[in-house]
Amino acid sequence: MSIKRMVELEKVQILWQLFIAFTVAKGLGFAFKIFKQPEVIGELLAGMILGPFLLHVFNPEGFISIFAELGVIMLLFLAGLETKLDDLKDVGTQAVLVGILGIIFPFVSGIAVGFLWGFHLVEYLFLGTILTATSVGITIRVLSDLGYIKRKSAKIILGAAILDDILALIILSVVKNMALGQVNWIEIGLLIFEATFFVVFLILVAPHILRRGVKRIRIGLNPSYQFALALILCFGLSLLAEYIGLAAIVGAFMAGLVISETAPYSNLADQFEPIGWLLIPFFFVVMGSYIDPLSFTMINVLALTVVLTIVAIVSKALGSFIGAIKSTRQTATEVAIGMIPRGEVGIVIAGFGLSYGVIERDVYSAAIGMVILTTIITPVLINMFYKD
Amino acid sequence: MSIKRMVELEKVQILWQLFIAFTVAKGLGFAFKIFKQPEVIGELLAGMILGPFLLHVFNPEGFISIFAELGVIMLLFLAGLETKLDDLKDVGTQAVLVGILGIIFPFVSGIAVGFLWGFHLVEYLFLGTILTATSVGITIRVLSDLGYIKRKSAKIILGAAILDDILALIILSVVKNMALGQVNWIEIGLLIFEATFFVVFLILVAPHILRRGVKRIRIGLNPSYQFALALILCFGLSLLAEYIGLAAIVGAFMAGLVISETAPYSNLADQFEPIGWLLIPFFFVVMGSYIDPLSFTMINVLALTVVLTIVAIVSKALGSFIGAIKSTRQTATEVAIGMIPRGEVGIVIAGFGLSYGVIERDVYSAAIGMVILTTIITPVLINMFYKD
Repeated sequence: MSIKRMVELEKVQILWQLFIAFTVAKGLGFAFKIFKQPEVIGELLAGMILGPFLLHVFNPEGFISIFAELGVIMLLFLAGLETKLDDLKDVGTQAVLVGILGIIFPFVSGIAVGFLWGFHLVEYLFLGTILTATSVGITIRVLSDLGYIKRKSAKIILGAAILDDILALIILSVVKNMALGQVNWIEIGLLIFEATFFVVFLILVAPHILRRGVKRIRIGLNPSYQFALALILCFGLSLLAEYIGLAAIVGAFMAGLVISETAPYSNLADQFEPIGWLLIPFFFVVMGSYIDPLSFTMINVLALTVVLTIVAIVSKALGSFIGAIKSTRQTATEVAIGMIPRGEVGIVIAGFGLSYGVIERDVYSAAIGMVILTTIITPVLINMFYKD
Repeated sequence: MSIKRMVELEKVQILWQLFIAFTVAKGLGFAFKIFKQPEVIGELLAGMILGPFLLHVFNPEGFISIFAELGVIMLLFLAGLETKLDDLKDVGTQAVLVGILGIIFPFVSGIAVGFLWGFHLVEYLFLGTILTATSVGITIRVLSDLGYIKRKSAKIILGAAILDDILALIILSVVKNMALGQVNWIEIGLLIFEATFFVVFLILVAPHILRRGVKRIRIGLNPSYQFALALILCFGLSLLAEYIGLAAIVGAFMAGLVISETAPYSNLADQFEPIGWLLIPFFFVVMGSYIDPLSFTMINVLALTVVLTIVAIVSKALGSFIGAIKSTRQTATEVAIGMIPRGEVGIVIAGFGLSYGVIERDVYSAAIGMVILTTIITPVLINMFYKD
């Protein structure tokens, strides 16, 4: 009798925690929006306030972590759904160059910073990885808010940022396995092979196969079953990615990409958007809750934040500028600036590092600080350097 | 680090369980749909197969119960969103009559069955209570699966079923107190007062207050924040309902009702529909997982199940038919049939009875069997008696 009652009480308590987390995240997100700042920072702040270091409304390792996981899966799935491979083909070579150089420069710089800071091997590999990925979401949002989304530089940025995401996630998968103490080069080689096969198969082959079946399937299915099939593909590929040693989010991103290639006329993106509105805030709230605000009062955390931010900006801008040098100087400059903001993927990778015990909480805090600063500074730089 | 690894594994395992539950539920639901049966039975069946009595893929008291709770909240919220108060007002008196007679007949019949079966006082009171509540969720689901949700009888059923739920929960609290030997009439009076106030305030007063602020709010809000506000109201009222001793689902329904009154032109219903597609199957899967198929091999359980089912069908249909007699004979027949399925509240009450040690496990199984049978038979009766 008392057990049932406890189960019941616990259920209400969980609902209550979800309610508070969602409400505060949305409230602070809205406040940041009013002041023309990225809402995601408000959601991180909500997590910091509600997390174990301040109010301790929830435990980020508890049930809310499942909602955070579903949130980040949905975030990457939606990013995949909104990505069109054809858009990238026009600016293909340049985007690839920008993407690759825009990964190498920050990755190497991050490793150098970590090495000079006295970190051990896996720790500085993680630091390098955190610096790699440009935020597709934040970049697109800023460029379209400012009316620059149609120009050539925007297309190069988009293509490069997507390649960035994919490469960063593959690097993450490798570093993750190293973090788990499985530095087995055969296994890592296998993982890279699997990852490449997974990505190449899903991008190049799967859409062709699926496209043939899809018209027939769509006729027989009402929207709720089309939605269910997409969701099953999303979770299925996430679990498959996890199973072969990649991060679940790689699978989610790929699922979105495959669906957007396969069913370009469906309104699945509209239907999944509210799912994102519901779940994604939990991811950022949980990520925010890992930040210990007191750690920024420590001079070494503050110093690391500043150094990481400067290195993140300079290395990404330089690599991207060189990658786009074949265009005009103006276009290359625009690309260099547009690539700067880190975002969700950087936060995801930092979160992985923390949860695997590879990076310290201080380093995590500095990494999140870097993500926030690069995100805030980009619109300012765009206003300065973009010419109409 | 090994603990971190365990957390990670557990997270993947939970994702895996959610994936399996969703996929099997949707698969069997689709199979039932193909054979023109309500999908919800397929989802219940999926739960029975995956639950602890057969494959034991998940534990219904575990993590998935939160998704089930969110699912039933979303089910009732959507029902509220799609309900227009004006439509209910048209059928108000009839819905009240149907609701009250549809409670009294089964309650008295249940007591009679229990008495004749040789049960003691509190046990047969519980049995009567289990028979009372029409399942709003299953009814709506069946009627909308079959495309009858817009007609007058559906509105009477909806209104009556909601009243049913509220009355059944009040009866439950009375019987529960008797089971505990603490008939605290002051507490019960307070609950009735609070429940009445809650419902009346939300239906009659809240929309008028909210409607004034709403135009101003909507201008400043993009869709994702309108969605968030609606969701916050939904969970806020669910928790409030729980807090004052009602079921959370009553609050969720009321939230949907208030929003549909306040923002009639918004497309919130379209945005919340996919949320329902995602979450609602978990509710029915969990409900199905409580069924022990083996208990029905025992002759006395089988006999009680059959008797209870017949009594449940006849008493509810008769009471509802008399309540709706002022309409046409056809409408009254449709109402009588639509009121038959028991569901979540019946199972909740049976669960209470079991956990308080008032009813035996056999009686519990028979009660669940009755819920399932009334649910299975209703679509058949609807196909027979509803006319286009």
